[in-house]
Amino acid sequence: AQSTSPTLDIAVIAGDGIGPEVIAEARKALKAALVPESASVTFTDYTLGAEHWLSTGETLTDATLEALRGHDAILFGAVGADPRHATIPSGLIERELLLKLRFTLDHSINLRPSRTYPGVATPLAKNEDFDFVVVREGTEGPYVGNGGTIRRDTPEEIATEVSLNTAHGVRRVVVDAFRRAQERRGQLTLVHKNNVLTHAGSLWTRTVTEVAAEFPDVSWDYMHVDAATIHLVTNPQRFDVIVTDNLFGDILTDLAAAITGGIGLAASGSINAEGTAPSMFEPVHGSAPDIAGQGIADPTAAVLSAAMMLEHLGLQTAATRITDAVNAQLSEWAAAGGGEGLTTTQRGDAFADRIASL
Amino acid sequence: AQSTSPTLDIAVIAGDGIGPEVIAEARKALKAALVPESASVTFTDYTLGAEHWLSTGETLTDATLEALRGHDAILFGAVGADPRHATIPSGLIERELLLKLRFTLDHSINLRPSRTYPGVATPLAKNEDFDFVVVREGTEGPYVGNGGTIRRDTPEEIATEVSLNTAHGVRRVVVDAFRRAQERRGQLTLVHKNNVLTHAGSLWTRTVTEVAAEFPDVSWDYMHVDAATIHLVTNPQRFDVIVTDNLFGDILTDLAAAITGGIGLAASGSINAEGTAPSMFEPVHGSAPDIAGQGIADPTAAVLSAAMMLEHLGLQTAATRITDAVNAQLSEWAAAGGGEGLTTTQRGDAFADRIASL
Ligand SMILES: CC(C)[C@H](C(=O)O)[C@@H](O)C(=O)O
Ligand SMILES: CC(C)[C@H](C(=O)O)[C@@H](O)C(=O)O
Repeated sequence: AQSTSPTLDIAVIAGDGIGPEVIAEARKALKAALVPESASVTFTDYTLGAEHWLSTGETLTDATLEALRGHDAILFGAVGADPRHATIPSGLIERELLLKLRFTLDHSINLRPSRTYPGVATPLAKNEDFDFVVVREGTEGPYVGNGGTIRRDTPEEIATEVSLNTAHGVRRVVVDAFRRAQERRGQLTLVHKNNVLTHAGSLWTRTVTEVAAEFPDVSWDYMHVDAATIHLVTNPQRFDVIVTDNLFGDILTDLAAAITGGIGLAASGSINAEGTAPSMFEPVHGSAPDIAGQGIADPTAAVLSAAMMLEHLGLQTAATRITDAVNAQLSEWAAAGGGEGLTTTQRGDAFADRIASL
Repeated sequence: AQSTSPTLDIAVIAGDGIGPEVIAEARKALKAALVPESASVTFTDYTLGAEHWLSTGETLTDATLEALRGHDAILFGAVGADPRHATIPSGLIERELLLKLRFTLDHSINLRPSRTYPGVATPLAKNEDFDFVVVREGTEGPYVGNGGTIRRDTPEEIATEVSLNTAHGVRRVVVDAFRRAQERRGQLTLVHKNNVLTHAGSLWTRTVTEVAAEFPDVSWDYMHVDAATIHLVTNPQRFDVIVTDNLFGDILTDLAAAITGGIGLAASGSINAEGTAPSMFEPVHGSAPDIAGQGIADPTAAVLSAAMMLEHLGLQTAATRITDAVNAQLSEWAAAGGGEGLTTTQRGDAFADRIASL
């Protein structure tokens, strides 16, 4: 959309807890990054999330969904109520808002980059840089909500969960992952559990084998999901692009966020590969009710998510302006002994100032 | 069985690659540990595994399975062919031998302890001891082999995997986990993904809630599987007993093995809770074809698996003799700069000597 209009039309779902706090800083970064471009940005706020459900009983109406479709992209904060004040049925908001957005807007590519940052300590003893991206399928697998229960609350209860995997869904995420590998270091790893989940595993493995033929400059290997967790903590350097299903991707990307030095840095994009609906960009972290309202949340993941959004919208230079600024700023804080005591706003302002200076 | 007979009747499936090398050392440890007891041990070897399949086309016959049922317990090495010499259909041996044993012998409790050992470096920067056990369900979940494929090899292919979860299966592993927590530090964590896998997740969560009422001295909490990977690398000290399903348990225990300093130390037991068939004890590591035949495999995990077997058979003193000896020996090697250059036999002999001296 931005090529015909110089104005990016962004929907903002700031959500609950620290969501609005970090999204405010992402907006500053976005605006600053666009100043040297011909493009500008408008934000339209949508009030959604756990607090919204508590006061209205609404998760995501058809009308809101329709309105969201009209924007170029969605910037998402975090959702989830404070368990000290309210009890919400487990997973309700996640399923009826977050997953509903991903599924309805056909966010087939859930993109989660993971890298070390200057001066950010990781929980790993081995102090070596790494930089990989997990390309997680976003619209099928065990996430489809297909399952059931019989004889509930009896000793004969049976509960099922069905993982649905289609050639269509697997192929598009695999093609996307190969393209990204081609632009990166040319190495792709398929992660699955094809020795046990033979039907889905076979579809994934055959698809990667087939698509690989179209990308002779990318080398690929296969790894079981259990083994992948070992490699992530012992040798994350070995990964360039990981492609995997929805559930394995969920698990591996939290681990990936942990080994980079924390979920406070992990950005993500839920991408509609065909461009039939807006893509969505969000920090991987949650609403963190324990620190909400104190102005101390780390806005880095939200700011980096904004950069991913710009890149997705074709504004590569503006995106790089943000990532370069974040890098430089984190280095500066590291050199000064870490930015531990800084508030959310101080961090966000520092990022914005640095972006403006680039 | 050992209370009526002073002789433990153990079936041995040494398997492929380094399996026979490490199992030889586990046998030495077992024998040494039993010397001061009234009990002794006989071993019956079963030739099974990838090499056996390559030469006979057999994975596990009904006759062999029947024979295995007659023993007090099974000591299992590792299975898997050398990919440089033979191509075996992916997962065939795993499913038709290893998983078939677990399912047919009703190994409902897959027990995987994880702890730091003196002088063994972990990949984590934070150098603090931890000690927890994962109690993984072993007979259902996504491992049941229930799924299918339609329109294979067409753009309309659909592949499914069905996770089956029963009140019976979940309850027995949950009860087992609470019992273990009671004998340990009284803290149990249920790991699942109940915000997405709502049917299975609800069964697990309700079962834990119910069983918890019978164990007022155990406190428990719930954690999503993705979050659990973060806690395992940032704060494994927080865990005492983790109870979880078959697939999550598979993933978490490889990660758990990695953070203890490697899969070379991880022991496991596949336990028949009702005592209707022999339980099986095996190192978590595989057949490691890359180092097989060189006599350099670490037998520690196999030796510790033998200790778990003794404990399961009611020979707690003999079991402790092994674990104490391993601890002391690892400490000694650590003090002497690590036992890096030692052969499998040197390690095994050192363990056996030390066991004999206790
Ligand atoms: C909140 C939850 C439904 C979600 C998921 O499982 O995908 C989250 O863990 C994530 O990774 O974005
Ligand atoms: C070999 C494989 C089938 C097995 C499993 O997935 O259970 C292994 O990974 C394990 O953890 O024992």
